[in-house]
Amino acid sequence: MEKSLAVLGGGQLGRMLGLAAGALGVPTRFLDPKPDASAQDVGTLIVAEFDDEAALERLICGARALTYEWEGVPAPTARAAEDRVAVRPPPVALDVAQDRVAEKRLFEQLDIAVAPFRPIDSVGDLDAALDTLGLPAVLKTRRGGYDGKGQAVVRTAVEARTAATALGGQDLVLEHLVEFERELSVIACRSVDGDVRIWPLTENIHEDGVLRLSRAPAGSGRLEEAAAMARKVAETLDYVGTLAIELFETGTGLLANELAPRVHNSGHWTIDGAATSQFENHVRAVLGWPLGPTEPTGHAVMVNCLGAIPAPGDVLDVPGAHLHDYRKRPNPGRKVGHITIVADDAETAARRTDEILGLIRAAEGRTEHA
Amino acid sequence: MEKSLAVLGGGQLGRMLGLAAGALGVPTRFLDPKPDASAQDVGTLIVAEFDDEAALERLICGARALTYEWEGVPAPTARAAEDRVAVRPPPVALDVAQDRVAEKRLFEQLDIAVAPFRPIDSVGDLDAALDTLGLPAVLKTRRGGYDGKGQAVVRTAVEARTAATALGGQDLVLEHLVEFERELSVIACRSVDGDVRIWPLTENIHEDGVLRLSRAPAGSGRLEEAAAMARKVAETLDYVGTLAIELFETGTGLLANELAPRVHNSGHWTIDGAATSQFENHVRAVLGWPLGPTEPTGHAVMVNCLGAIPAPGDVLDVPGAHLHDYRKRPNPGRKVGHITIVADDAETAARRTDEILGLIRAAEGRTEHA
Repeated sequence: MEKSLAVLGGGQLGRMLGLAAGALGVPTRFLDPKPDASAQDVGTLIVAEFDDEAALERLICGARALTYEWEGVPAPTARAAEDRVAVRPPPVALDVAQDRVAEKRLFEQLDIAVAPFRPIDSVGDLDAALDTLGLPAVLKTRRGGYDGKGQAVVRTAVEARTAATALGGQDLVLEHLVEFERELSVIACRSVDGDVRIWPLTENIHEDGVLRLSRAPAGSGRLEEAAAMARKVAETLDYVGTLAIELFETGTGLLANELAPRVHNSGHWTIDGAATSQFENHVRAVLGWPLGPTEPTGHAVMVNCLGAIPAPGDVLDVPGAHLHDYRKRPNPGRKVGHITIVADDAETAARRTDEILGLIRAAEGRTEHA
Repeated sequence: MEKSLAVLGGGQLGRMLGLAAGALGVPTRFLDPKPDASAQDVGTLIVAEFDDEAALERLICGARALTYEWEGVPAPTARAAEDRVAVRPPPVALDVAQDRVAEKRLFEQLDIAVAPFRPIDSVGDLDAALDTLGLPAVLKTRRGGYDGKGQAVVRTAVEARTAATALGGQDLVLEHLVEFERELSVIACRSVDGDVRIWPLTENIHEDGVLRLSRAPAGSGRLEEAAAMARKVAETLDYVGTLAIELFETGTGLLANELAPRVHNSGHWTIDGAATSQFENHVRAVLGWPLGPTEPTGHAVMVNCLGAIPAPGDVLDVPGAHLHDYRKRPNPGRKVGHITIVADDAETAARRTDEILGLIRAAEGRTEHA
């Protein structure tokens, strides 16, 4: 038990991985360019750029495994470590998740439905894609987008051209704008032995492109369909650890939108609302240990705190509320914490979520106008 | 959220408090004489004796509250901090818990039944006490005993005198040996506002005076009786935080045995098996925040690892098993970790506990014969 877990990235996902590892008696080390990274007080933080070889060496020295908490980590950094330590999930998952076109092609190859799309590298590509896919559509950068950044909904050809120019004109992808009933996500974890565990399907509600809340179990007949998708992706990539697939639920079935090769914001509810959290199972998986059960313990709703966290006394006064403060500087819109409500039935959970949302919006409003 | 939580003691209870505080975004600082204290990698460890005033000053500087994880902490140290920081639980709880006679007198004063007892400070006291209480009896030191240390069961007057001499001859207490059906404990938490939450009653099984396993809910009609005891003690002491009362269940009701003014080994199952753990509620209480619900999420059994922890891969292969490794040097008999099994029914939990016990005994046997 002397060996540590090395983590590329020290944000809140790293923090929650570190807390899960701490319970298991595994010390964590993080590499992050930010000296005030959220994970700093749950483990040892090495402050350096991700391509700093000496820092990577220190990170993995004596580590049992190297993992990452962010899919933006350079794949070459992860690959560079592979001859000295088990790198889990495999770096190929970074390659796929960092490129929206590669991601969609993987889904297609596995017979997982996606919204019709075309890669865009020129005005000619754009015109042809608009002809084929029609409007409205979504134009996205192939790489680096997150939380609604690096994308635009376009409703006319003129809008599409303006957006394409604004997004750099190449390395883009145009997608048919899906009319969905709900946004869902499936969170899965796969062990070294190939055991796959799936948490209940989660429904996600976004505001301005950023996840506002997640609800689970989502109460849909779609779990089997989603689980099959997650299983196929995990098996194809020989994946080890937790992954998430963001999904659109349409009248005719599920469409895969995005793959996150890591623990995911829409799985935070599992800390307080499932037999084993996505973080604990990720730690278990990357260390080569068996996974725990993923059954829910009630009806859970997770609400993100964007830019501000309400007073803990107010939050914890709501029955069944669990506060998670990432200890990040509270800039407007920044994910600085989350609150999970667990209740015996969906109605109670919804009512208490409204209370929590009221507190959160008031706190966020104060920050934005400060 | 800038302020930290200061903790006197850095053992495994401190470690688990630190992990709970970390989720809430509260950094922890610990004071402990041991440089390799278990809590060291979940917070900042100040290595010093408990009566080191400069170290205490550093511990509480910028702290929101001072608490303790061990009732052996010197009460004067806790009192010395009271004019600068909220000290919770109140130091009077240390006074009571550090002296078996004061403890029993508090119980009596609150009409809480205890085994008949007599303070012993001389051979004359011992002879008189043996006359009154009869034999068999238990002779204990008034102060400093734990895990079966500092006590002896005596079946004859000669044995009693020998034991009294071995235990120092004074500051002892003789208790009638209770014939109990089960050993139970009640874990409660009281907030600054006086809100008291009680976890389900826990049944405890000791081996050689050391807790081997705890099971909850204990399935007894005694919860109300035990809860009333915990409530009276907490209210009388104006207690803030988690406390435990160890109980004997006899044919005629419950007898209080011991008060622990802190989170308790028999409450470790609440981390994985209750809506809110004893650690999270203790942190909430001492920071002045509202408490969370204490409902169980299933049938939980916690087994202590004494001197050795089985291979994590074997432990976690048992469905519903959660491993807690305190990262302590594995000396024979030392509490180095625990494993909690949570299952939907008591039979499944019991069957899986047998598997876990088999692994633990094998690991402990290897350590003892190494």
